[in-house]
Amino acid sequence: MKTLLFISIVMITHTAYSQENMEISKEIITLEKTALERWNRGDIMGYINIYAEDIVYFDPMIDKRMDGLNKLSEYYKQWEGKIHITECEMIDPKVQAVDNMAVLTFNLRSVEGMHVYNWNCTEVYRKDEGNSWKIIQTHWSYVKPSLK
Amino acid sequence: MKTLLFISIVMITHTAYSQENMEISKEIITLEKTALERWNRGDIMGYINIYAEDIVYFDPMIDKRMDGLNKLSEYYKQWEGKIHITECEMIDPKVQAVDNMAVLTFNLRSVEGMHVYNWNCTEVYRKDEGNSWKIIQTHWSYVKPSLK
Repeated sequence: MKTLLFISIVMITHTAYSQENMEISKEIITLEKTALERWNRGDIMGYINIYAEDIVYFDPMIDKRMDGLNKLSEYYKQWEGKIHITECEMIDPKVQAVDNMAVLTFNLRSVEGMHVYNWNCTEVYRKDEGNSWKIIQTHWSYVKPSLK
Repeated sequence: MKTLLFISIVMITHTAYSQENMEISKEIITLEKTALERWNRGDIMGYINIYAEDIVYFDPMIDKRMDGLNKLSEYYKQWEGKIHITECEMIDPKVQAVDNMAVLTFNLRSVEGMHVYNWNCTEVYRKDEGNSWKIIQTHWSYVKPSLK
């Protein structure tokens, strides 16, 4: 009887945990897709609005990790209104979460004019004081870049 | 008086929080440096021992995100005993943490023979049931790769 009770509690806890994680996963993927859709039309504010003040950032165009929302907002201005992605596929997004932090990883295939880009992406989200998920770390890199 | 008490409580809480974060930061950077030093001598087990079962992984040599410790251990075998890094500098490591999850980011300059490699790196650590930090996400990418 005790064993049964224990198993039931474990199962309920596990189900609650999985349920909570599924909800976090859905919420984070929706946030990312929404920001990405805006980015693909040249609207940089979709991402900037969900970046935390202490965000750290990597992409293949910069020399070193970029730290802080101020610098990143300044850096993003060059793309404002200048992106026209015609096709975009987020491949196999996966979220690994605890209560107040979560990591989203995916591959991305995007097409702009004649160019096809294949990306690796890691986003780390953290819950802020107002209970909203904000990105604290972004890492974009090319899939198998051919070095000169 | 009430205001003073409030300020004191806030300051104590903040100090305790900073203290805890500093300790997490030190612990995580030490873990990473130890694994990296073993890697630089061709010992792949330093990293494998601190990877979680559900690790997800990106580097510039693979087509798509790699999922799970089994696949990653298999992939790493090709480097066992074959790495001889002579110089290695972890540049500006930074840890952003909550109680049971933390993200470590840094740039890395490493030298092997005549080759100099410049890397971006993101590691996400999560506390496991035994209270040990394990890596659940690794993302290595080249700094400014020159595309063919």
